[in-house]
Amino acid sequence: MASASRAATPLLKDELDIVIPTIRNLDFLEMWRPFFQPYHLIIVQDGDPNKTIRVPEGFDYELYNRNDINRILGPKASCISFKDSACRCFGYMVSKKKYIYTIDDDCFVAKDPSGKDINALEQHIKNLLSPSTPFFFNTLYDPYRDGADFVRGYPFSLREGVPTAVSHGLWLNIPDYDAPTQLVKPLERNTRYVDAILTIPKGTLFPMCGMNLAFDRELIGPAMYFGLMGDGQPIGRYDDMWAGWCTKVITDHLGLGVKTGLPYIWHSKASNPFVNLKKEYNGIFWQEELIPFFQSVSMPKEATTVQKCYLELAKQVRAKLGKVDGYFNKLADSMVTWIEAWDELNPPKGGVATANGPPKK
Amino acid sequence: MASASRAATPLLKDELDIVIPTIRNLDFLEMWRPFFQPYHLIIVQDGDPNKTIRVPEGFDYELYNRNDINRILGPKASCISFKDSACRCFGYMVSKKKYIYTIDDDCFVAKDPSGKDINALEQHIKNLLSPSTPFFFNTLYDPYRDGADFVRGYPFSLREGVPTAVSHGLWLNIPDYDAPTQLVKPLERNTRYVDAILTIPKGTLFPMCGMNLAFDRELIGPAMYFGLMGDGQPIGRYDDMWAGWCTKVITDHLGLGVKTGLPYIWHSKASNPFVNLKKEYNGIFWQEELIPFFQSVSMPKEATTVQKCYLELAKQVRAKLGKVDGYFNKLADSMVTWIEAWDELNPPKGGVATANGPPKK
Repeated sequence: MASASRAATPLLKDELDIVIPTIRNLDFLEMWRPFFQPYHLIIVQDGDPNKTIRVPEGFDYELYNRNDINRILGPKASCISFKDSACRCFGYMVSKKKYIYTIDDDCFVAKDPSGKDINALEQHIKNLLSPSTPFFFNTLYDPYRDGADFVRGYPFSLREGVPTAVSHGLWLNIPDYDAPTQLVKPLERNTRYVDAILTIPKGTLFPMCGMNLAFDRELIGPAMYFGLMGDGQPIGRYDDMWAGWCTKVITDHLGLGVKTGLPYIWHSKASNPFVNLKKEYNGIFWQEELIPFFQSVSMPKEATTVQKCYLELAKQVRAKLGKVDGYFNKLADSMVTWIEAWDELNPPKGGVATANGPPKK
Repeated sequence: MASASRAATPLLKDELDIVIPTIRNLDFLEMWRPFFQPYHLIIVQDGDPNKTIRVPEGFDYELYNRNDINRILGPKASCISFKDSACRCFGYMVSKKKYIYTIDDDCFVAKDPSGKDINALEQHIKNLLSPSTPFFFNTLYDPYRDGADFVRGYPFSLREGVPTAVSHGLWLNIPDYDAPTQLVKPLERNTRYVDAILTIPKGTLFPMCGMNLAFDRELIGPAMYFGLMGDGQPIGRYDDMWAGWCTKVITDHLGLGVKTGLPYIWHSKASNPFVNLKKEYNGIFWQEELIPFFQSVSMPKEATTVQKCYLELAKQVRAKLGKVDGYFNKLADSMVTWIEAWDELNPPKGGVATANGPPKK
């Protein structure tokens, strides 16, 4: 099934925001300038709000620090993590665009096997604009790419696919390993360029990494809550995983698709495995309960919107994970607060926003 | 997770048979000589049994034509298709080895992106000897390959994986398309080398192609029945698909894995789409019923062996697909006959074979 040709990929300039959580000057944007400059950036400054973050000249951006988040959300700001890149989801909430691309500030432009710079954002847009195929596996991977199609034996009734809600991109160089694996394999680098995009099948959970991730905010935005991590919390580095598990059960229920594979970015720097272990050890333990929980979640028919699904999920988190650790009751509360805050900042069309407008800087 | 290094991949010379269905001289073996010559070949001659099939010098093989099949199986030979490459499954049945590799006679050695000849069989062996991960998706694909591992967020309790029963290899050049797609895209060639192997998740069906396929006969052999196709049947070109769907629901039930991806072979020649359409049209129609059927199959706890699962499946085929077309009642009968014949030729260890021995040629 011929997809749109490379030249024809729409830029979506006015429909996509790039969300970047950071604690430092954004010099990494220099390398991305040819690809990112047409877009609006939402920078979520983590940590000390009095620090000034330098953004290279010529980028169009708004920047929110902790004081801004507190001012805009009031008491509901409690649902946004502090001192953890989970704070990025605040950017999803204040965006008014249809699509979000989020990237870490230690990620650079990767090269394809021919040596050409990879325009990651363009590939994400292609992924989001072509359908997903969650109900049956295609052995030649994404059937909508140029030069590919559905193979023999693929039911014709399923070839229209479903709308794609999430495009999960990968990383060359430093792989996204947990602390124990980092400790055991400090020198391992991902050098394998796998030229594939594929739909994660319905009913299958995956580890969603927030380093290089795009999604359709209108289709799935309210499920992209990165949880309570970092300062004051017993866990870190599970923000994107949590969002991924919640998102997957909701996309499965709503008949939406999640793709993974291309595009690659170049992940430059391994984080400290000792620090990571401290952040992760509860998560490593808890995820053994979380996966069976998410595998068994079932949504009622009445859950017809992302918000309704998410509130239902919060209820089940409280009922079933509260007994694993009290933290999950707090998390369930925050999931509800997140949806309230989301709806406040994103009132139904025709409604009136009640929050203060974002500061344009 | 470091897998065995390339040099260390065992040949499994005495544990693997190569099964080739054919109607013509096997000149294609010349190109495979460096890779296949150490192995024993089982050639299943389709069509006219009086024709002589030439096999290049130096290969160790046994060859069965229709007369041999009739002699060995007696009335049970009815379960083996005639004038269709589905007859290859007779070779699985008469093999005494642990592993089977089956390949079509229009498939040649492909080259990897560096220009090196791909030893497809070696990669299949690697795939079969390393575990599968059907319960959770790993975004860096097969975690057991050199240079890869389980990513952050992958539950540690699932990292042992499960035994791999099937290794499904792919094809460069002529893609495995159905007749309608062949007709619409006569010039499409698969030129994309995707350097990946992945486990098809539990609960997900896929289109298994028999062109370049390896499996563990001890783990899954009795499910690898290629059905009733060709001469006297209302359907063709669904033999491998049928085997794949049956196999997948049984591997899922028994906790075994199915991998797809590498290795590639070079598929040289597109079959005639007009002839294919005639063979396929019932299948194209019926598969719309077959997929929901296989998606809803549930195996009872007592189905603890492949044979028991397969007989249960035959029962469900009769009960649920018989009303789609009378053909499925006949197919269900043949599924039972297949298992009877399998058990006759492969008696439980310590038992005595009742069939005539295979003719050594």
